[in-house]
Amino acid sequence: MKNILKYPAKNTWENLLQRPALEKKDLRKTVEEIFLKVKNDGDSALKEFSAKFDQVNPENLAVSHQEIESAENQISEELKIAIAQAKENIYQFHFAQKEKSEEIETTEGVFCWRESRAIEKVGLYVPGGTAPLFSTVLMLAVPAQIAGCQEIILCTPPQKDGKINPAILYTANLCGVTKIFKVGGAQSIAALTFGTESILKVDKIFGPGNQYVTQAKQLAMEYNVAIDLPAGPSEVLVIADEGANPEFCAADLLSQAEHGVDSQVIFLATNEQILEETLAEIENQLLKLPRMEIAKIALNNSQFILLNSVQEALELSNLYAPEHLILAVDNPRTWVSKITNAGSVFLGNFTPESAGDYASGTNHTLPTNGFAKNYSGVSLDSFVKRITIQEISKKGIQNIGKTIEIMAEAEGLTAHKNAVSLRLKSLENGI
Amino acid sequence: MKNILKYPAKNTWENLLQRPALEKKDLRKTVEEIFLKVKNDGDSALKEFSAKFDQVNPENLAVSHQEIESAENQISEELKIAIAQAKENIYQFHFAQKEKSEEIETTEGVFCWRESRAIEKVGLYVPGGTAPLFSTVLMLAVPAQIAGCQEIILCTPPQKDGKINPAILYTANLCGVTKIFKVGGAQSIAALTFGTESILKVDKIFGPGNQYVTQAKQLAMEYNVAIDLPAGPSEVLVIADEGANPEFCAADLLSQAEHGVDSQVIFLATNEQILEETLAEIENQLLKLPRMEIAKIALNNSQFILLNSVQEALELSNLYAPEHLILAVDNPRTWVSKITNAGSVFLGNFTPESAGDYASGTNHTLPTNGFAKNYSGVSLDSFVKRITIQEISKKGIQNIGKTIEIMAEAEGLTAHKNAVSLRLKSLENGI
Repeated sequence: MKNILKYPAKNTWENLLQRPALEKKDLRKTVEEIFLKVKNDGDSALKEFSAKFDQVNPENLAVSHQEIESAENQISEELKIAIAQAKENIYQFHFAQKEKSEEIETTEGVFCWRESRAIEKVGLYVPGGTAPLFSTVLMLAVPAQIAGCQEIILCTPPQKDGKINPAILYTANLCGVTKIFKVGGAQSIAALTFGTESILKVDKIFGPGNQYVTQAKQLAMEYNVAIDLPAGPSEVLVIADEGANPEFCAADLLSQAEHGVDSQVIFLATNEQILEETLAEIENQLLKLPRMEIAKIALNNSQFILLNSVQEALELSNLYAPEHLILAVDNPRTWVSKITNAGSVFLGNFTPESAGDYASGTNHTLPTNGFAKNYSGVSLDSFVKRITIQEISKKGIQNIGKTIEIMAEAEGLTAHKNAVSLRLKSLENGI
Repeated sequence: MKNILKYPAKNTWENLLQRPALEKKDLRKTVEEIFLKVKNDGDSALKEFSAKFDQVNPENLAVSHQEIESAENQISEELKIAIAQAKENIYQFHFAQKEKSEEIETTEGVFCWRESRAIEKVGLYVPGGTAPLFSTVLMLAVPAQIAGCQEIILCTPPQKDGKINPAILYTANLCGVTKIFKVGGAQSIAALTFGTESILKVDKIFGPGNQYVTQAKQLAMEYNVAIDLPAGPSEVLVIADEGANPEFCAADLLSQAEHGVDSQVIFLATNEQILEETLAEIENQLLKLPRMEIAKIALNNSQFILLNSVQEALELSNLYAPEHLILAVDNPRTWVSKITNAGSVFLGNFTPESAGDYASGTNHTLPTNGFAKNYSGVSLDSFVKRITIQEISKKGIQNIGKTIEIMAEAEGLTAHKNAVSLRLKSLENGI
């Protein structure tokens, strides 16, 4: 809980908010070797890597119907109801993102429009580790299903007992995942990139992961597979004025800090008392957290900054481009138009980030590490591509033909011109 | 004009349409060195590379007002009118892509929506070479301006005389480009990535280029700059039934072939006579083209395939995922719903690809090399990011709070749960 700053000069902001440089270990070579082996040896390479990296020897890579059914019995009714409510909200919010194709007549007789088509085959990666991230399954599989993706393949590393957490299996099955595989790490990304005997090659890969998975997704792009977003540690920036509740602010900052030791936590206050009280509340709440040690380390990199106004805080926030931005201020809606760079925004005292992480309906796969300046988070758009379509009538080509001829000629592309000239001539001749 | 195939079996299609493997020369090291030098030495490195690669020694990298004014005087009135019509159509089509933000109440008291924000700083690359691609300036600068990008930086290599083609300067100035620089190649992408004394660091880079530029754009991504699309040679696939006009089909195929020696040209016919006549027309038209030698080489890689039906042709087309798809068939609109993978589609006999290349209003920056399976072409979307925003009322958090608590607990993230529990408790206590 260091780094408390009061009214820093604007010309210091950029340095102030520099994210810790991500240690770019050179994993490329390691991951390239994994890719090559999976490309050549398929499933047997996957099994070999599972034994080596995860210390498990799954007989079958694919999860069976029995395993899915059994998972359903292991989930409490309470959790099923919660997942159902979250799913319904995520469904509603993403369904509303369906594009309505509007036909534009740009010139008389020239009709242009766009239509969305699902990306046919998508791969979802859900990491293993301490937390069974079934919420990530919801965030990726629900929009994939709305988009109409034909194949929704999920890869996730098995636990030490060779099984997959039942909440992940239950959620995947509920959300239309077509096939689930017990395989994780860079080798699973390689499998989705090249295909193996059991795993289908996909067009786009989604989901978070460790540095090997991140490197593998980068490498997948070189083999023409698309990915959802570049990766980076999770982050929250909270802006608080005198209307903020320090107890809530502290809880929101801690819920970011518990994610991982590299989590970024930034608190901007316009009121010194709120700042002090929030700091005290953090000390207080921190002690009760099971993941206290993780949160403590993350808080060492955190920033607590006192500023003159919400306006100034937003300027600083736009410069930082946080993944999550919480506006714990009076009349938060009046500030929304001033936000230029952020992944997802949470307004007011009763909108915690964890609502968006789980159940309000928005997606939790968001641009971090400053990528909110140039990337959107995952949405229905991420699972479709948009095709432009045009139809030009005889009248239409007569209306824009000369323009095309002149431009093609000026670019020295005679055949482009000719494609129009022949058509115009045929119309003059009344053919 | 080899590769004429009649009714190939479906299981041969995938191999049949394999694109020639792109020679991935290892340019990475060369481009990395250029990046390093530009990062360290800024403008002086740019000038050094210009002298070395382009044999020009520009005194100033930035184009002056005088140069822009003088360009305006060098453009014919006819070309100005053509550019104005094209710009108006492109403006209309892209303006209609503005998203209407719709607020969704996913659960009573839980309000979620999305808002678009311009990517603040964008860099447009326009290649030099034989054709002065002012049409590319239109396709990139018009949507950038509609999006509201604050800085629209254009880089293009100077001609041998140290000047930039006046049509490029005129169009850039007309479309709100904020600054134009006489610098090309990988060094210009490096400049947009890091910034130099004269060139601003940008958030996203757009535009086509040679293999050095392509490699440089890939490298830019590793420095957190976004790019428009992965690159590849241009391609067209034409589907013709008995209603097609062989003269027009030949002209469309040739206008693709003249682009470059690596252009991909595929013709699928359901009628043998149309196929034969189109081949004859190609021979005929080819002889009159200034870029005949380029087109000839491209045609050596082309495919002319006879198939049983338009339905079958569309299946094959979807497998190939062409950048441009022309449906020279009767009632082309009835087939649109069957198209799953394509960049841009042209319907009927009077809709040549060159209409979309220049003036109908659609964008000509499209996914090629099979990327139409997983990427959209450039649109207004490419110049904005979408921020999700949510506001939850007291009633709202009471409605979804328990769901969040249960899910966070099941994922082992206690602080996430706590952020909700504290708020629910405060409401119970009537605070």
